[in-house]
Amino acid sequence: MATKTESRTGLIDTDIHERVMYEELLPYLEQPWRRYITDCHWIQEKHMPYTQPAVAGVDRADARVPDGRPAGTDLGFMQEQLLNPNGHEAGILTGALDPSPSSMHGWYEMATALASAYNDWQIDNWLDRDERLYGSVQIAAQDPAGAVREIERVGTHPKMVQVLLPLDDILWGDPYYHPIFEAAEKHNLMIGMHHNEPPVHYGKWPRYFIEWHTLIPVAHMNQVTNLIFNGVFEKFPNLKVMMIEGGFTYVPFLMRKMDQQYKDLRHEVPWVTKKPSETVKEHFCFTTQPLEEMTKKEFLQVIDQMGSEDIVSFSTDYPHWDYDSPTEALPPGLDDTFVRKMLSETARKFYPKLPQKEG
Amino acid sequence: MATKTESRTGLIDTDIHERVMYEELLPYLEQPWRRYITDCHWIQEKHMPYTQPAVAGVDRADARVPDGRPAGTDLGFMQEQLLNPNGHEAGILTGALDPSPSSMHGWYEMATALASAYNDWQIDNWLDRDERLYGSVQIAAQDPAGAVREIERVGTHPKMVQVLLPLDDILWGDPYYHPIFEAAEKHNLMIGMHHNEPPVHYGKWPRYFIEWHTLIPVAHMNQVTNLIFNGVFEKFPNLKVMMIEGGFTYVPFLMRKMDQQYKDLRHEVPWVTKKPSETVKEHFCFTTQPLEEMTKKEFLQVIDQMGSEDIVSFSTDYPHWDYDSPTEALPPGLDDTFVRKMLSETARKFYPKLPQKEG
Repeated sequence: MATKTESRTGLIDTDIHERVMYEELLPYLEQPWRRYITDCHWIQEKHMPYTQPAVAGVDRADARVPDGRPAGTDLGFMQEQLLNPNGHEAGILTGALDPSPSSMHGWYEMATALASAYNDWQIDNWLDRDERLYGSVQIAAQDPAGAVREIERVGTHPKMVQVLLPLDDILWGDPYYHPIFEAAEKHNLMIGMHHNEPPVHYGKWPRYFIEWHTLIPVAHMNQVTNLIFNGVFEKFPNLKVMMIEGGFTYVPFLMRKMDQQYKDLRHEVPWVTKKPSETVKEHFCFTTQPLEEMTKKEFLQVIDQMGSEDIVSFSTDYPHWDYDSPTEALPPGLDDTFVRKMLSETARKFYPKLPQKEG
Repeated sequence: MATKTESRTGLIDTDIHERVMYEELLPYLEQPWRRYITDCHWIQEKHMPYTQPAVAGVDRADARVPDGRPAGTDLGFMQEQLLNPNGHEAGILTGALDPSPSSMHGWYEMATALASAYNDWQIDNWLDRDERLYGSVQIAAQDPAGAVREIERVGTHPKMVQVLLPLDDILWGDPYYHPIFEAAEKHNLMIGMHHNEPPVHYGKWPRYFIEWHTLIPVAHMNQVTNLIFNGVFEKFPNLKVMMIEGGFTYVPFLMRKMDQQYKDLRHEVPWVTKKPSETVKEHFCFTTQPLEEMTKKEFLQVIDQMGSEDIVSFSTDYPHWDYDSPTEALPPGLDDTFVRKMLSETARKFYPKLPQKEG
């Protein structure tokens, strides 16, 4: 949608998916984990039970590396296709460990070992090789003690900006996650939420990808609501959460609904000290992709209903099939200051470890 | 919220909860079901695992029957407190069989027997005793053959206007439900959706009532999306669904999201022949309660985003704790024609078995 606008410079892209080939993790894995992959007929788990949405699966067809490797596996090609032409000042890597370590419910130690190897691989191959790239600490949620150890181990890296907390059957407001939040807060890391689960109905996948993809924001609504009403931000006042790849057009509904419930039912959750919509504005940020096609009027109406133009941050979701271009995805005619916020300044404020002077 | 407006006459109230005392079902139950209740230490299942939201549980404290019986159990008191003072032209009963028959997963026959007894009790004690009251056919979703028999048995009653389809772990777009939709369509019955389940996250209840209550619309979003993308309305073109007690402020988000997904991914669901937002406008209606407090401007903004003022129908949710008054819940200053639609004409069009001439 939208007409072409001027090339964006100084972009801070809050959702870029680098991808690992499993064999690249081997040098980073201790035994016996390495041996399980090399010698024991290791089969990578399949993430989704669907026919893929596009000709190149979940990826842009043109993002396949020229040597034939899958999209997102090669830094040089990512620089050429994404970072250089779009004038990225910074990009946050959000991974594509497919599946996330959290899906191995029965084998906590292997899940934690894989997350750990992945983080080392990410630092060596991406964060240390392009100054524009920043990272996400991958952890296995089913092993909170291992997750805390991993945050302590790599969270101090100057370019690790957030902990990517996997979704599981326990919602994030549960005290189960307190040690993880405590470790994140200690290292000035934000929490990143990227759906990695079936968001709907009894934890089952719906019949079609189009349904699952439509309802991704439901997984986001569940977590926002649960975090707020379980008092997580009263306990961890510096914690902030980036809601990645869920868009933002559901937020006005959720704010309005939570505020009304808070007015009616706050006696049940006396630890919640603030109107939920205020907490959203203070502790959450939402990445734009996948941006629905909207006119300027429609776009601004949603922003108006959110009551803030400071909690929406642009993301490309490169190299996925529904990639949003920084020069084409936003409706034309938006105010320059607001566009600048979405393209860089909101993310810069959100992640304290990003360069704090515009380059 | 909202200032008092003039008394509403000719109201069609699309969500009124009558309640049964289990012993009242005994005369309507065959053996052995009756004996299970009278002789076998029958324990009524508990619907929700929470401390109740208000001093009278889920009910208005002043709705308790003066003789001490729970709210919603007495027609005379309902007439005095709800139907007469508010000038109801009609009210749709949506039940409070607590729990719904569908929650007895292991005992299909008993669930169907209870639904059947309930329908007979509903006809004798409510539909046949007040000309203003219309009914919902209760069925047990885990027993589709029994459900069809029940629709055939009581769906021909002139005052049964819809089938109240319980929620279960199978979403409504699944072919599992086709026999039920076929039977409903045959008898000119609409489908009513009233949440009776934990709407979020792996079928588990969240920790607090306030979370569950905030996320009720999620259960509605799941079903709307699933019904549309599974092609139910192409197969049953006369089927319509009333979304009860989920409000409507989530609908703009859902329409926009589904339309975008349809544009991007329709190749996956070629049986879907129409833009989802158009299907919503043609096949769905949304009851207002629980209405968030909104200004006229905010209210109209949401209606504008829905693209229709003809798919929202007023409901009181009597006798629940968060009852909406027809004279107080809507923001003041709305256009009279639009108010008249919400208060009666939209419901009248939606349910063909309601009186079709305004009385």
